[in-house]
Amino acid sequence: MRPSVSYAILCDGDFPGNADVRDRLMSCDVVVCCDGAASSFMRFRKPEFVVGDMDSLPENLRQELADQVFPVGEQESNDLSKAFRWICSMLRVGKGRTLPEFSITVFGATGKREDHTLGNISLLADFAEYLEQCGARGDLSLVTDYGVFAPVLNSCRMTLPKGQPLSIFAFDPSLRIESSGLEYSTDGVRFDMWWKATLNRVSSPEVELRFSHPAKVLLYLPGWFGRPLDTAGL
Amino acid sequence: MRPSVSYAILCDGDFPGNADVRDRLMSCDVVVCCDGAASSFMRFRKPEFVVGDMDSLPENLRQELADQVFPVGEQESNDLSKAFRWICSMLRVGKGRTLPEFSITVFGATGKREDHTLGNISLLADFAEYLEQCGARGDLSLVTDYGVFAPVLNSCRMTLPKGQPLSIFAFDPSLRIESSGLEYSTDGVRFDMWWKATLNRVSSPEVELRFSHPAKVLLYLPGWFGRPLDTAGL
Repeated sequence: MRPSVSYAILCDGDFPGNADVRDRLMSCDVVVCCDGAASSFMRFRKPEFVVGDMDSLPENLRQELADQVFPVGEQESNDLSKAFRWICSMLRVGKGRTLPEFSITVFGATGKREDHTLGNISLLADFAEYLEQCGARGDLSLVTDYGVFAPVLNSCRMTLPKGQPLSIFAFDPSLRIESSGLEYSTDGVRFDMWWKATLNRVSSPEVELRFSHPAKVLLYLPGWFGRPLDTAGL
Repeated sequence: MRPSVSYAILCDGDFPGNADVRDRLMSCDVVVCCDGAASSFMRFRKPEFVVGDMDSLPENLRQELADQVFPVGEQESNDLSKAFRWICSMLRVGKGRTLPEFSITVFGATGKREDHTLGNISLLADFAEYLEQCGARGDLSLVTDYGVFAPVLNSCRMTLPKGQPLSIFAFDPSLRIESSGLEYSTDGVRFDMWWKATLNRVSSPEVELRFSHPAKVLLYLPGWFGRPLDTAGL
């Protein structure tokens, strides 16, 4: 069995207040803090890496974390994107490479300014697409105090407890998703407003989502903090 | 001069923690609480109306607020939509009617479960479109502890302080917006991911947004709590 490495990215939104979420963050093998997020994380321990443009890390922490701090100065992408690319370079993600199993979990990406929240959530779908294009099949998710976002890029099947709430966000309004195992059918839904496929619920443990074509989609499962979401292609 | 009435909708997300935002909520003429949001509001005073399916209002409050509680049982729309329709019916919004000046400000719409947050934010654009279709030109906004969302449906001009951060969210990926007065031009932006036009900044006090066609768009202004955003059509 290949070794599995768990990476965490800690953004500088709301620090996890939910004990389960905080435990999950602390149990990750490698924690990459986005810039000023290192301040909150240092209440627990030193992160392995701090990346970003370093405009929000206090000077005393910058000195204390001198061996962990890696400034990335470009202004074209945000600190979450920089942290993601940092992990990709550690993993040597690239076409044709065989990678060890890995997971990347994003924490602290929501809360505070809503434009940061919205941007961060949507980036998760871009990251998933990038990993797939590189043939790197790692587990990717974004965990908040209230639930989990998980990206899917094509038709899939998953086993979920009956009654589990589920919301679907798609970035391509031409996408159609036929579904089974959900309380409200998604068959006629046009994903042109963010609320269009929210507040659904699992009605049968075997859930299937059949995409009209590959597209960037996020599933959101409130209260889902235990095991990773296990999706299988159709 | 026609009288101006200010309506507030208080959703059951995070109750305003920012003192300026709370003051603004308290100064509204008519406060409509979504279901359980009345519990938080009652720490200050009685709301004028409580609407929703009443699945989260404690029984003792339901009795205390008996004269203010108006259950709306249908499950096709959420409590924010029900509150909005309630205000529209009070205003007698409808095609061909001349209405008094009014404002509707949504509070407590973000925080807690992210699917509620995303749904609520996007509904604001639908509400703006509905009011415009009815010829009702009221001021509509959604205020959080961190900033303000304001809908625009077509080309517009506004005066803003230089340096003011500004993010743009569009629900129609075929929309193009040519702009002036912003640090980063939006001319080439394709609104296919939520992050695409975020974290911009006002570079000249006169900002112009020129839409390729009418479309549902939300502006987000972090830290903008003072006066309403004053937009004029082009």
